Amino acid sequence: MAKRHIQACAVAGFLNIFGDGWTWLVIREAFYGATRFSEFQRNTGIARNLLSQRLSMLVDEGILRRDDVGERGPRYEYRMTPKGEALFPVLVTMIQWSNEHVFGAGREPIRLLERNSMKQLKKVVPTTARGRVLHWPDVVAQPGPGADKAARMRILESPQGIDD
Amino acid sequence: MAKRHIQACAVAGFLNIFGDGWTWLVIREAFYGATRFSEFQRNTGIARNLLSQRLSMLVDEGILRRDDVGERGPRYEYRMTPKGEALFPVLVTMIQWSNEHVFGAGREPIRLLERNSMKQLKKVVPTTARGRVLHWPDVVAQPGPGADKAARMRILESPQGIDD
Repeated sequence: MAKRHIQACAVAGFLNIFGDGWTWLVIREAFYGATRFSEFQRNTGIARNLLSQRLSMLVDEGILRRDDVGERGPRYEYRMTPKGEALFPVLVTMIQWSNEHVFGAGREPIRLLERNSMKQLKKVVPTTARGRVLHWPDVVAQPGPGADKAARMRILESPQGIDD
Repeated sequence: MAKRHIQACAVAGFLNIFGDGWTWLVIREAFYGATRFSEFQRNTGIARNLLSQRLSMLVDEGILRRDDVGERGPRYEYRMTPKGEALFPVLVTMIQWSNEHVFGAGREPIRLLERNSMKQLKKVVPTTARGRVLHWPDVVAQPGPGADKAARMRILESPQGIDD
């Protein structure tokens, strides 16, 4: 991304890392087990200079780590850090929405199954502690401790917003 | 995005809609209740030509609908369709990851609470039917009915991949 968002907003903070058309394909590859530059390149089709920039950015952000595993000269492997692995729920909700709403039933490119039961993953949705599914109207938004004045105003102006 | 991904991949399909730094800010605003061009513009800071392009794209994709509510000449309101509202779990996992890993505890820009209990939303994660939390190693990926040859090969090549 050319320009970083400066809003104190969790969505903007996410987009400063992932707000382009390639970064999530790199993340997909890391989840699929790609570790080498050439694997990322072949499996995404991303141009080498862009891939190099995205991998460096993901290392700088602490989402991938880069290990030198070369015995004769440098050879790098990229692996997920815990911060990267924590993207798993985002990946799953993204895949589930895309399967259902972009491709549609019977045309899904991928299925995610639980390894033990070999059953398809349940839809990942917000729920109450007792398991009732929550929709957006069931939720209110409150400025967090990191909200600046603009973020606070935006949240409180929303019908979903409540004061802290 | 300049160029559409042609891979038969749920992640690529998602990125063809959301793979830029602005579209999710527009979605955020729609969840916050923005309906007018001027509201989207003011609350995101997006340039008018880009905003216009993104709103049209989201209408074309069936994520927002555009209603003419003008009494003297056209005046448009943009509202979420059910396909747009179905992005709620993606938004929540994105916000929860960003709060935890981009901003960190005590610096979250926003908190999401359940309206009835006023408790913070539980972390939204994949679970088994019985509620056990699943991580990526607990999951296998299978080519879906919409996988083309390349997608099938990519999935089966992964340590997580299994045949259908």
